[in-house]
Amino acid sequence: MATSKKRAKRISKSHKKVGLPPGTMTYVGNKESSELIIEVYNYTPEGVTHKDCTTVEDAVAFLATDAVTWVNLNGLFHVKAIEELGKSVGMHPLQLEDVVNVNHRPKIEELTKGGLFVILKMLYYNEANELIIEHISLVFKDNTVISFQEDDKDVFDIIRQRIKEPRGVIRNKQADYLLFAIMDAVIDHYFLILETLGDKIEVLEDQLIYNPTDNLVGEIQQLKREVLKIRRSIYPLREVVGNLEKAEHPSISDDTQKYFRDLYDHTIQVIETIETYRDMLWGLMDMYMSSVSNKMNNVMKVLTIIATIFIPLTFIVGVYGMNFENMPELHYQNGYYIVWIVMLVIFLAMLYYFKRKKWL
Amino acid sequence: MATSKKRAKRISKSHKKVGLPPGTMTYVGNKESSELIIEVYNYTPEGVTHKDCTTVEDAVAFLATDAVTWVNLNGLFHVKAIEELGKSVGMHPLQLEDVVNVNHRPKIEELTKGGLFVILKMLYYNEANELIIEHISLVFKDNTVISFQEDDKDVFDIIRQRIKEPRGVIRNKQADYLLFAIMDAVIDHYFLILETLGDKIEVLEDQLIYNPTDNLVGEIQQLKREVLKIRRSIYPLREVVGNLEKAEHPSISDDTQKYFRDLYDHTIQVIETIETYRDMLWGLMDMYMSSVSNKMNNVMKVLTIIATIFIPLTFIVGVYGMNFENMPELHYQNGYYIVWIVMLVIFLAMLYYFKRKKWL
Amino acid sequence: MATSKKRAKRISKSHKKVGLPPGTMTYVGNKESSELIIEVYNYTPEGVTHKDCTTVEDAVAFLATDAVTWVNLNGLFHVKAIEELGKSVGMHPLQLEDVVNVNHRPKIEELTKGGLFVILKMLYYNEANELIIEHISLVFKDNTVISFQEDDKDVFDIIRQRIKEPRGVIRNKQADYLLFAIMDAVIDHYFLILETLGDKIEVLEDQLIYNPTDNLVGEIQQLKREVLKIRRSIYPLREVVGNLEKAEHPSISDDTQKYFRDLYDHTIQVIETIETYRDMLWGLMDMYMSSVSNKMNNVMKVLTIIATIFIPLTFIVGVYGMNFENMPELHYQNGYYIVWIVMLVIFLAMLYYFKRKKWL
Amino acid sequence: MATSKKRAKRISKSHKKVGLPPGTMTYVGNKESSELIIEVYNYTPEGVTHKDCTTVEDAVAFLATDAVTWVNLNGLFHVKAIEELGKSVGMHPLQLEDVVNVNHRPKIEELTKGGLFVILKMLYYNEANELIIEHISLVFKDNTVISFQEDDKDVFDIIRQRIKEPRGVIRNKQADYLLFAIMDAVIDHYFLILETLGDKIEVLEDQLIYNPTDNLVGEIQQLKREVLKIRRSIYPLREVVGNLEKAEHPSISDDTQKYFRDLYDHTIQVIETIETYRDMLWGLMDMYMSSVSNKMNNVMKVLTIIATIFIPLTFIVGVYGMNFENMPELHYQNGYYIVWIVMLVIFLAMLYYFKRKKWL
Amino acid sequence: MATSKKRAKRISKSHKKVGLPPGTMTYVGNKESSELIIEVYNYTPEGVTHKDCTTVEDAVAFLATDAVTWVNLNGLFHVKAIEELGKSVGMHPLQLEDVVNVNHRPKIEELTKGGLFVILKMLYYNEANELIIEHISLVFKDNTVISFQEDDKDVFDIIRQRIKEPRGVIRNKQADYLLFAIMDAVIDHYFLILETLGDKIEVLEDQLIYNPTDNLVGEIQQLKREVLKIRRSIYPLREVVGNLEKAEHPSISDDTQKYFRDLYDHTIQVIETIETYRDMLWGLMDMYMSSVSNKMNNVMKVLTIIATIFIPLTFIVGVYGMNFENMPELHYQNGYYIVWIVMLVIFLAMLYYFKRKKWL
Ligand SMILES: [Mg+2]
Ligand SMILES: [Mg+2]
Ligand SMILES: [Mg+2]
Ligand SMILES: [Mg+2]
Ligand SMILES: [Mg+2]
Ligand SMILES: [Mg+2]
Ligand SMILES: [Mg+2]
Ligand SMILES: [Mg+2]
Ligand SMILES: [Mg+2]
Ligand SMILES: [Mg+2]
Ligand SMILES: [Mg+2]
Ligand SMILES: [Mg+2]
Ligand SMILES: [Mg+2]
Ligand SMILES: [Mg+2]
Ligand SMILES: [Mg+2]
Ligand SMILES: [Mg+2]
Ligand SMILES: [Mg+2]
Ligand SMILES: [Mg+2]
Ligand SMILES: [Mg+2]
Ligand SMILES: [Mg+2]
Ligand SMILES: [Mg+2]
Ligand SMILES: [Mg+2]
Ligand SMILES: [Mg+2]
Ligand SMILES: [Mg+2]
Ligand SMILES: [Mg+2]
Ligand SMILES: [Mg+2]
Ligand SMILES: [Mg+2]
Ligand SMILES: [Mg+2]
Ligand SMILES: [Mg+2]
Ligand SMILES: [Mg+2]
Ligand SMILES: [Mg+2]
Repeated sequence: MATSKKRAKRISKSHKKVGLPPGTMTYVGNKESSELIIEVYNYTPEGVTHKDCTTVEDAVAFLATDAVTWVNLNGLFHVKAIEELGKSVGMHPLQLEDVVNVNHRPKIEELTKGGLFVILKMLYYNEANELIIEHISLVFKDNTVISFQEDDKDVFDIIRQRIKEPRGVIRNKQADYLLFAIMDAVIDHYFLILETLGDKIEVLEDQLIYNPTDNLVGEIQQLKREVLKIRRSIYPLREVVGNLEKAEHPSISDDTQKYFRDLYDHTIQVIETIETYRDMLWGLMDMYMSSVSNKMNNVMKVLTIIATIFIPLTFIVGVYGMNFENMPELHYQNGYYIVWIVMLVIFLAMLYYFKRKKWL
Repeated sequence: MATSKKRAKRISKSHKKVGLPPGTMTYVGNKESSELIIEVYNYTPEGVTHKDCTTVEDAVAFLATDAVTWVNLNGLFHVKAIEELGKSVGMHPLQLEDVVNVNHRPKIEELTKGGLFVILKMLYYNEANELIIEHISLVFKDNTVISFQEDDKDVFDIIRQRIKEPRGVIRNKQADYLLFAIMDAVIDHYFLILETLGDKIEVLEDQLIYNPTDNLVGEIQQLKREVLKIRRSIYPLREVVGNLEKAEHPSISDDTQKYFRDLYDHTIQVIETIETYRDMLWGLMDMYMSSVSNKMNNVMKVLTIIATIFIPLTFIVGVYGMNFENMPELHYQNGYYIVWIVMLVIFLAMLYYFKRKKWL
Repeated sequence: MATSKKRAKRISKSHKKVGLPPGTMTYVGNKESSELIIEVYNYTPEGVTHKDCTTVEDAVAFLATDAVTWVNLNGLFHVKAIEELGKSVGMHPLQLEDVVNVNHRPKIEELTKGGLFVILKMLYYNEANELIIEHISLVFKDNTVISFQEDDKDVFDIIRQRIKEPRGVIRNKQADYLLFAIMDAVIDHYFLILETLGDKIEVLEDQLIYNPTDNLVGEIQQLKREVLKIRRSIYPLREVVGNLEKAEHPSISDDTQKYFRDLYDHTIQVIETIETYRDMLWGLMDMYMSSVSNKMNNVMKVLTIIATIFIPLTFIVGVYGMNFENMPELHYQNGYYIVWIVMLVIFLAMLYYFKRKKWL
Repeated sequence: MATSKKRAKRISKSHKKVGLPPGTMTYVGNKESSELIIEVYNYTPEGVTHKDCTTVEDAVAFLATDAVTWVNLNGLFHVKAIEELGKSVGMHPLQLEDVVNVNHRPKIEELTKGGLFVILKMLYYNEANELIIEHISLVFKDNTVISFQEDDKDVFDIIRQRIKEPRGVIRNKQADYLLFAIMDAVIDHYFLILETLGDKIEVLEDQLIYNPTDNLVGEIQQLKREVLKIRRSIYPLREVVGNLEKAEHPSISDDTQKYFRDLYDHTIQVIETIETYRDMLWGLMDMYMSSVSNKMNNVMKVLTIIATIFIPLTFIVGVYGMNFENMPELHYQNGYYIVWIVMLVIFLAMLYYFKRKKWL
Repeated sequence: MATSKKRAKRISKSHKKVGLPPGTMTYVGNKESSELIIEVYNYTPEGVTHKDCTTVEDAVAFLATDAVTWVNLNGLFHVKAIEELGKSVGMHPLQLEDVVNVNHRPKIEELTKGGLFVILKMLYYNEANELIIEHISLVFKDNTVISFQEDDKDVFDIIRQRIKEPRGVIRNKQADYLLFAIMDAVIDHYFLILETLGDKIEVLEDQLIYNPTDNLVGEIQQLKREVLKIRRSIYPLREVVGNLEKAEHPSISDDTQKYFRDLYDHTIQVIETIETYRDMLWGLMDMYMSSVSNKMNNVMKVLTIIATIFIPLTFIVGVYGMNFENMPELHYQNGYYIVWIVMLVIFLAMLYYFKRKKWL
C-alpha cells in the first residue's frame, strides 16, 4: 500500500503528452492549486510598487512602465493565464509548453523577438524528508522578469526583502541583475540540500561502523537515487549558467556578467560536492559488503570452534558408550578418569590451535 | 525448445547480406506481408485527398502536384516497389539498400539531388511483452515526404487525424513540418516505453525488498538488455535530430527548425531517463547481491546457534552414557538433576552470548 | 602440453624485430608458404585478362596498361617479392616493413608520390574454432590496386567473380571502386564473426541458466578475450574508413566516396554490436557469480535444515541414554512414547519455522 | 561523542552564506585568530625592507614604491582589513567574497583594472594526522603581490629566506616571479603530502599481507577520502597553472612564463601520482575482499575435515551403543577391536581424500 | 625486513627537492657512479671518430665540427658536468634540473635558441625480475645529439654498431635521424617488456586454472602495478612522439618526420597491448574470485553430504541407545536388522537426492 502510493508519485505522467501536437500546453505535475495570484513588483531606485493581481491583464499593465518589473506566477495548473502572460512578452508556443512541462530539463533559449527564456529546478526536502524537484521558468525581456513556479515553497522571499530595501543593490540595477538574483537564490538552495545529504551520508557511515543492519543497503540505494536526481538537475543547470556567463547576450551588461561568472563557480562547487558524495556512497557500499563478509566469517568461526572441539570429544564418549561384552577399558579402575584427561588434552590442544590461528 | 525459438528471433540474419555487391536490396527482417498498399495523403490548407494505391505508379502521380504529399509504404518485404518509389525521388541505390536493411542504425543523409533521407527506429512492446524495434525510413524532398515502415503497428494514426483536421497546424505548413510531425510521433512513443520500463524496474525493486527469489537476476539482466537496446536506438537518433536542428538545410525553414530544437530536447530527456534507469539497474544488482549475502548470513546464524548450543550438551549426555564400571557420578542420588542444571546454565549462557552478539 | 602449445601461438614474435634498423622487412608471423603466386586481373568494361604470375616482373608488366589492374600476392613469407612489387609503385621502405609486420594495427597513409596505402585485418574462426586475425595490406595507385595477404583463406573469391561478370558494376568503375570492393568484402566478413560470437554468447547464457558448471567462467573469459581482439581490429579500421569517407583524396571520386560512407556505416554497426556483446558478457559474469552464491545458499539451507532438526533430537535421545542410577523417567510405563511425541512436536515446529522462512 | 566532534569539523558551514546578497564577505572557516598582522616585504636587487604592520594603511603605503612589494595577511577572520586591502588594488566585491570563502575551489581571474587574482589550496597533515586544506588567495598587480592565508602554518618561510638573500634569483626579478615563487612553494608541499600518503598505502598493504584485520576496510576508505580531497584541490589547480603558462597575460614576462611551465609539469606529476594511488587503493580493496574469502574458505575447511571424519565414526559407535537384545556383534570376542580397525580405515581413507583434494 | 627494504626503494626521494629554488639541479635517484665518461661519436658518411672523454671540455670541442656528433653521458650523479655540457648547447637551468630529476615524466620542449629537449623512459627487468624505469634525456641541436642516461644498462649498443657501419643508413643522414634512431632503440625495448609481461600473465592464468593458491591475488596485484608503471611511461611518450611527427620543427626534415610517424605507430601498438593486458588482469581477478567461491561451494557440499547423511542415522541409533525400561522394539528378534535396513534405505534416498541435485 505504502509502496503503490510511493510508486504513484515517482512515475511521471509523461503519457499524458504522447500524441498531442507540439505546442500543446499540458501540466503533467500533480500540484493543483485553486486560486490564481500573480505577484507584481515594479521598482526603481526611488520606490517600489507591489500588487497581487488576480487577472493577467492587471499584471501585463505594469510591463510597459520604465521601472524594472518582476512578475511572479505561482501554480503551473493555471495553463490559460500562463499562455496569456507568456504571449504578452512574445514567447513561442513551444516555450509555453515547456513552462508547464515539469519534466523538462534546465535549458536556456532566446525569445523570438529578443530576451531570454530559462528553465531551472529548485530542490527541497519536504516534510516526509523526500527530495522534491520543483520546475521553475524565467523569462527576461527588456526591463521585465517573469517567473513561473510550480509550487509556493518559497525561496523567493529573500528577493522580495531585498527589493524592498531602499539601499539594496538590486534596486539600483537593471532587470538583468534581477534575473541573476533569482537564479542565485535558487542555486544557493542547492548548498542546503548538499549539507542535508552530507549529514545523511555521515549518519549512515557511523551506523555502518557502530551498528550495521540489513536494511542499510536500501538506505544507501536511496541516497544514490537522490544523488542521481541532483546530478540530473545540476549538470544542465551548469550549461545554462555557463551560457549566461560566456555568451554575449546584448541584454546582459558586462557588470552583471561578472555576477553570472560567480554563479558559475557555485554550480561547479555543487557538482564537485555531489561527485564526492557519489564516490563516498560507492565506498559505503563496499564497506557494507565487506562488513557482511566479516560478520559471516565470525559466525563461521564460532561454529567451527565449537564443532571442532566437541565433535571429536563426543566421538570418544560414544566409543565408551558401546555395549560390547569384551571392552577391557571399561573395567579399568581409572578408565573413566583417563578418558577425562585425554579429552582435556584434546580440548587444550584445540584451544592452542585456534589461538595460533588468531580465531580466538 | 522455448529457448531455441527465442534464439531464432534474436539473431539477426546479417549473413544474408555477406558477399552481395553494395546496393543490393535485401530485406533481412522476418515480417513478411502479402499485399502492397501505398497510402497517399495530398493536402493543402484548403483540402485533403486520400488514396490507398496498389501500384507505385499511382502513388508517384501525386508527387508532381503543388500540394504537400505524404506517401506511406508498409512492409519492407516489397523490395521492388520500394526501389521504384525511391528512384522516383532520386534515392541512391545505397540508400535504398538501407531502407530494407532493418539492422541499420539511425542516420541522416542528403539525397544526391536535394532533399533528406532519415532512418530511425520505433520501439514498442509486443503482446508477449518483448521489446520490438521497428525500422522506419523517411525521405523528404520538395513538398513530399515518403515513409517506409517495416510493420503496420501504427504510430502514424495521430498524423492521419491531424492532416484531416481543416484547422490543424499541419495543414497550414509545408512538407518540412510533416517530416517533423512524423519524427515527433515516433519519438513521443519512446516516453511510453520508458514509462513501462520504469514500472518494471519499480516492480522488480519491490520484489527485491519484499520477496527476493533466485530468478530476479535473470529479470535484472533482461531489463539491462532492454536498456541496451533503447540506448542503441536513441543515441544515433539524437545525432539525427541534432543535425536537423543545427545544420542549415535549405529545405527546412527557420520556423520548422524551432520544432526540431524542441524534438532535440525530447531526445535528450529520453537519454537522461534511460541513463538513470541504467544506474538504477546496477543498483538493483548490488541490492540483490547483498540480499543474497544477508540471507546466507541468517541461514548460517540459525545453524550456528543450534549447533553451538546442542553440540556441547550432547557431549555432556554422551559422557554419562559411557559404560565404565567405575563412574562415581552415576551413583549420586541427584546426579541426573545436577547434569540438567549444568546443561541449563550452559544453555542460558549461550543464549546470553548470542543476544549480546545481536544474533538473536 | 596443450597449454604450452597454445602459448606458443599466442605470443607474438615481436622480439624478432627489436634492434633492427627501421625499414628492415621481417615477417613475424608463422604461416610459411613455399610457392610464390602473384595473381593479376587486368580489366576494362570490355574484357578481363587473368594471369597467375610466378615472378614480380610478369606482374609489374600489367601496371602500365590503361586497364584497371588488381595484383594479389598471397604469403607474406615472400619478403623479396613484396619489396620488389612495392617499390614498383613507389612504396617507402617503412611501408614495406609494415606489409610483413603482421602485428601492425590498421592504418591509412599516402604514398610518397600519390596513391594510398591501407592496412586492415581479416578475422575468421579456424577449424579449431579459434579466432584468427589475418594481416592484409592494400596499395592503391592510379588504375592499380595491389593486395598483400598473409593467408590464402580467401574472402576475395567474391571479388574475382564480380570482376568476371561483364555487366558487373565493378567492371564499369575505376580502381578506387576496386579498393572499396576489397575493403567491403573484408568488413562484410566481420558480420559473420559477430553472428558466431553472438551464438556462443547465447549458448553460454542458456547453459548458465539450465546447467551452470564451474568452468563457465573460463568460457566467459575466453569470449571476453575474443571481444578484445575484435575491438582492437575494428576501432582503428573505423578511422581508416572514416578517413576515406571524409578526406578529399584526389584519387577517390565523389561517387566512390559515397560507397566508403556506406562502408563507414557498417564499421559503426560492427562496433555497436561488439560493445553490446561486451556488456552482455559482463552481465553473464554477474549472473554466474550470483548463481554461485545462490547455489551455496541452497547447499547451506539443506545442511542447516537437517542439522537444526536432528541435533536437538539427538541431544534428547542422548539424555535418556545416560546411565544414572536415579533417572525416574526411565521407569515410566510410557516414557519412551512420551519422548517420541515430544520429538515429533519439535520436528513439526522446526518444519513450520523453515516453511515460514521460505527455506522449504 | 568522538563521532559528533568529527562531524562538526567535516561539514562546511555553507548554510551561513545561503540567502546573503552576492559580494557579502562571510568567513565560513573555523580558525579565528585575535590579532591582525600584515607582513610587508619591499625589495629591490639592492635591499629589503621588512615591516609587520598592524593597520591596512601602513601596508598600503608600500604599494606605491618602485620596489617589488609582498604583502602577506594571515587570518581570514579579519574581514574588514581584507576588504580595505583588496579595494586598494582594485579587487571586485565578488573576488573579496571568494578570499574569505574557504570552500571556494582554485581559480584564476583578471582584476577589473589589470592584474591577476588566484585562489589555491595548501595541504598539510595536522598533529592528529588529519589532512587539512588551507585556503590561500593571491593578488598580483604591477609590482605587488598580496597573499591572504587562512592559517599561519607557514610554507612561506622559504620565500622570506630567499628574499633576504642578496644574491638570490628572486631579488633580481619582478613581482611576476614572486607570484611564481609563492605558488611553487605551495605546490612543492603537495609532494610531501604524496610521500606521506604513499607511505600510508604501503603500510596498509603490508598489514593486509601479514596481519589482515577487520578494520582495514575503514582505513582503506579513509585513504580513499584523502585521495578524493587531494584530487579536488589539484585538478582545478592544474587549470590555474595551465592558464598562467599558456595565456598571454601582459603582466607576466616570457622568462617567468617558462617557470610557470615548469610548475605545470609539477602539477601533472602530482596528478599522475594521485591517480596511481587511487588505483592502488582499489587494488587493496580487492586484495582485502579476496583475503576475507580465503580466510572463510580455510575456516570452512577445518570444520569440514573435522566433521567429515568424526560424524561417520560417531555414527558407528552409536550403532554399538544401541540396546537391542539381539545384536550378535556385541558378543564377538574381538568385536570391539574390529570396530576400532574399521574406524581407523575410515579415518585414513578420509585423510587420503583430503590430501588428494589439497585441503591438508 | 625484506619489506622495509622494498619500501626504501619504492618511495621516491621527492622531499629532497621541496623548498629548493627552481633550477636547482638535484639528483633524486639512487644510482651513484664514481667515474665520469663522456662518450663522443663524430661521423660523416666518410668516417667516424670515437673518443671517451673524461672532461666536458674535450667533449664540447667536437660540437663545432661539421660532422654529426653524438655525445653520450652516463650517470646523472655528475651534476656539474651535466650543467656544463648542457649550457654549452644553450639549455635553460629549468631543463638541466629536469635532466637529473629522475621522477620527471616524458616531455618535449624547444631549447631557448633552437633545438629540442626530450625526456623519455627506458624500461627493463633487473636481475631480481623487478621492473626498473630509467630516466633518459636527449638534446638535439644543429648537427649534435646529446644523451644523458641514469644507468649504463645499454640499449645504445645497437646505435654504436650502426654508426660504425660505413654503409649504414645512419651515417648518411643528419642529426635529426640520429635523434630518431636513439628514440627508436628505446621504444623497441618496450616490446621486450611487453613480451615478458605477457608471458607472466599467461603463466598466472595457467596457475589459476590448474593450481590456484591463495597468494595469486598478490601476484595479480603486482602485475597490475607493473601495468600502471608502463602506462605512466608510455602515454606521455606518445605525446612526445606525436609532437615530433606532427609539428613542423624546422630542424627535422620531411624525410625524418616519416620515421617519427613510424615510431608513433609503435607507441600506439605498445599502448594497445598494455590496455589489453590491463583488461586481462581484471579478468584474472574475476576468475580468481569465482574460483575461490567455487572451492568454497565444493567444501560446503562435502560437509553437507556427510552431515546430512549421518546426522539422521546417528539420531536413529541414539534412539535405540536410550535406557527406557519399556521399549518394545529392543526385544524384537529382528529389531537390530530392521534398523539397519531402515538406515540403508535412508542412506540410499539421500544419495539419490544428492545425485539429482548434481552434488555428486
Ligand atoms: Mg566513482
Ligand atoms: Mg568517481
Ligand atoms: Mg571512485
Ligand atoms: Mg564511481
Ligand atoms: Mg564504477
Ligand atoms: Mg553511471
Ligand atoms: Mg552507470
Ligand atoms: Mg553509477
Ligand atoms: Mg560508476
Ligand atoms: Mg554503472
Ligand atoms: Mg561498474
Ligand atoms: Mg559498457
Ligand atoms: Mg560494462
Ligand atoms: Mg554496462
Ligand atoms: Mg563495460
Ligand atoms: Mg559499466
Ligand atoms: Mg566495469
Ligand atoms: Mg581504478
Ligand atoms: Mg584508474
Ligand atoms: Mg580508477
Ligand atoms: Mg584500474
Ligand atoms: Mg579501473
Ligand atoms: Mg573508479
Ligand atoms: Mg573504477
Ligand atoms: Mg566492480
Ligand atoms: Mg579496460
Ligand atoms: Mg573495462
Ligand atoms: Mg579496465
Ligand atoms: Mg573491460
Ligand atoms: Mg576493465
Ligand atoms: Mg573498472
